[in-house]
Amino acid sequence: MNTNTNPPSGTRDFLANDIRKRRQVTKVIQEVYESFGFEPLETPAFENLSTLLGKYGEEGDQLLFRIMLRGEKLQEAVAQNVGRDVPAERLYADLALKYDLTVPLARVMARYAGQLPKFYKRYQIQPVWRADRPAKGRFREFMQCDVDVCGSTALTVETEVIAAVCTVLERLQFSDFSVALNHREVLRGLIEAAGIAAELEGTALVAVDKWDKIGKEGVAAELVNRGITATSATKLLDLLEVASATSDNAARLAMLRENLKRPSALKGLDDLQTILQLSAAMGTSQRLALSPNLARGLSYYTGAIFEVVVPGVSGSLGGGGRYDGLVGMFAGREIPACGFSLGLERILLLLEERGYFAESSNGLDILFTNFGDTIADTLALATRARKLGLSCDVYCESAGLKPQFNYAAGRGARFVAFFGEREKSEGKLRLKDQSTGAETSVAVDEIETALPRVVVKR
Amino acid sequence: MNTNTNPPSGTRDFLANDIRKRRQVTKVIQEVYESFGFEPLETPAFENLSTLLGKYGEEGDQLLFRIMLRGEKLQEAVAQNVGRDVPAERLYADLALKYDLTVPLARVMARYAGQLPKFYKRYQIQPVWRADRPAKGRFREFMQCDVDVCGSTALTVETEVIAAVCTVLERLQFSDFSVALNHREVLRGLIEAAGIAAELEGTALVAVDKWDKIGKEGVAAELVNRGITATSATKLLDLLEVASATSDNAARLAMLRENLKRPSALKGLDDLQTILQLSAAMGTSQRLALSPNLARGLSYYTGAIFEVVVPGVSGSLGGGGRYDGLVGMFAGREIPACGFSLGLERILLLLEERGYFAESSNGLDILFTNFGDTIADTLALATRARKLGLSCDVYCESAGLKPQFNYAAGRGARFVAFFGEREKSEGKLRLKDQSTGAETSVAVDEIETALPRVVVKR
Repeated sequence: MNTNTNPPSGTRDFLANDIRKRRQVTKVIQEVYESFGFEPLETPAFENLSTLLGKYGEEGDQLLFRIMLRGEKLQEAVAQNVGRDVPAERLYADLALKYDLTVPLARVMARYAGQLPKFYKRYQIQPVWRADRPAKGRFREFMQCDVDVCGSTALTVETEVIAAVCTVLERLQFSDFSVALNHREVLRGLIEAAGIAAELEGTALVAVDKWDKIGKEGVAAELVNRGITATSATKLLDLLEVASATSDNAARLAMLRENLKRPSALKGLDDLQTILQLSAAMGTSQRLALSPNLARGLSYYTGAIFEVVVPGVSGSLGGGGRYDGLVGMFAGREIPACGFSLGLERILLLLEERGYFAESSNGLDILFTNFGDTIADTLALATRARKLGLSCDVYCESAGLKPQFNYAAGRGARFVAFFGEREKSEGKLRLKDQSTGAETSVAVDEIETALPRVVVKR
Repeated sequence: MNTNTNPPSGTRDFLANDIRKRRQVTKVIQEVYESFGFEPLETPAFENLSTLLGKYGEEGDQLLFRIMLRGEKLQEAVAQNVGRDVPAERLYADLALKYDLTVPLARVMARYAGQLPKFYKRYQIQPVWRADRPAKGRFREFMQCDVDVCGSTALTVETEVIAAVCTVLERLQFSDFSVALNHREVLRGLIEAAGIAAELEGTALVAVDKWDKIGKEGVAAELVNRGITATSATKLLDLLEVASATSDNAARLAMLRENLKRPSALKGLDDLQTILQLSAAMGTSQRLALSPNLARGLSYYTGAIFEVVVPGVSGSLGGGGRYDGLVGMFAGREIPACGFSLGLERILLLLEERGYFAESSNGLDILFTNFGDTIADTLALATRARKLGLSCDVYCESAGLKPQFNYAAGRGARFVAFFGEREKSEGKLRLKDQSTGAETSVAVDEIETALPRVVVKR
């Protein structure tokens, strides 16, 4: 007999109350994304290993959960490796659990090119797996929640994706969030304006990305550590900060424009201006905060970048941006794309802290008690109540009142129903409201009309 | 660049239309199971390998997708195995994708014993993975859909589980199904009555289980092949068939009672009689067909067994029964249990064939066209329409009418909306009904009241 009955390290079992909360949130996300015209997509839990390898850098490759070859194929691979000692993870695996939802999207874009709409607007809410060291709030199996538009470079795309995410967060009663907005070409322009060589641009971005965590002084030290002169580091930080001197996006835009020369950086500024204008039409511009020091670590972004910020909450509830070079990787042509990924696990944690899930009931409307002799009648009554849309359980076994009431309480039943010999002879179902203790009777002949008035559907 | 963009062998990508159908069906199943008082459960995609090994027989073990050790642990295992040649699948894996939903349920029953209700009624709709040879309708990643009651031997459990499944199938508009019903102890009694030795009982059951596929003559030959005398084989088949001479369950019960002597078999008959009586109270007894030749291959059943039968459809849409010895395997005590598993993939296939999914629209209510100059106004109008609960897409780019109409058709949009300079100057949104071709205008000031009358929510 096994003794370890925990779920595997970094994974979780979800019992009824967890699932209800998770479903409540994903339902909001689904509804909002569908109202914005996004289509759902689901891909398999695992991909061919070759599809995933090399897409997430060396570190990412090491975090893949690889699935072993099976049967003869494994035996052959082992036999071929005798005396050769090729690392086992290269030779003995052919599949791996998916690591994110972007590479599968890229595969889908290539595979179904002919049948997808010209602009493929898809959302995908599925688990992904990473063999990370588990920690508080960090799991090895967790939900990702992505929304992307593939196939257009138009700035309506950025605007709509941002508006969709804002609508989700507002529907989830986040009143205090903002969306930090920047542009990779603007950042590159500022890095150039600071006198940093082009080949140090990537490493500079990594340092700037840590601003939230280590502050301005920390970034300065990190820039110098990464081979950038102290003069350039100071200049860059001043440039990044000058635009933060005002909270007015138009003023920030104007300050940035003064310091930028590169046409691509000025084009980036124009893009941001357009996104802000279109967002004003959609009622989301007051959520947007132009943030020159927002870098977003991933190297694949090519245009606008964004990140959800909640005051007092460290880290982000989600982020995204334009990444025109990635989604076409399997299609063999560049497919422009822009998307937003929400951190569902963090959102759930925060909603829990904020008391969003007030209703703790597990949804059971009536527990029907069981007194043995009248059980057939009781089952018939439960059947009629279920047809009225009520969630009803019947106590499995004939028993005394105490265990039945205990069970009803444990299941969070709103009403307990009695139909023993006495009630049967009177032709009445007796009901006890568990929150008030009040008792009511409903004539058996009138269940269909009277019961919904007593046990009001939630 | 990878060239193979198919999903891995035996798995599928689900695009929007697939997902809508799958969601439509799982929603019915969820609603019905919740109305019967079942709680949802979800467990991780993978379990510790030791949790799964040895639970499905040798054949099952070989069908597990094993996940390789990672990093140093893998290196250590490889180093330790030099010159020892322990099979790689034993040494190099620590996790495996779940093979079914029953073993995870057993683990959950042990892990959360203190916090689960006395009778744990749970449903679970999740994918499982089996490294089977893929074939038409057989996948390596497929949904299982289980409903089980743990903790009671009462026959209300069998009755409720059967009624829940019948309600699901009726809600899915299956009018022609029946549920074959038998009892393991009745079968054992018949095998004994045929003069077959107790040690051949298991192998006899395997042969009887093939009745549907190979017919009576086939089973006879198989019984003899399995070491049962021709006399006993003939007697058993006659016993199994005599009770099929009538379609009346009560008459079948009476015939069986004449041929059975073992107390446990007679108790099994009593159980079946009670299930039929209680099912009559729930309105499901007319679906039940007492079927003495129903065996259900799995050896773990201990009481009543059932299987959904649809005329003209080979194989079953689902099955189940009582299995009192299994769910307690990790808890170290016997936990009685009874459940029903629906074959979601088969159900979907059959519903598709039967035209259940009449509505093929992908749910897009309005495509807003894009004429460049008025795009900010168009986005504002789309935002207002979305707030009315309508699913709206805005064509990403400024373009001529033709590509926009093509896109609208490809997305299955019900209406195409126009807001160019002319409409703007008139203060009217123009709408074209894609099914009738009819055009309507709605004053911009009256969107909130007038639009829902034109584009009626589905």
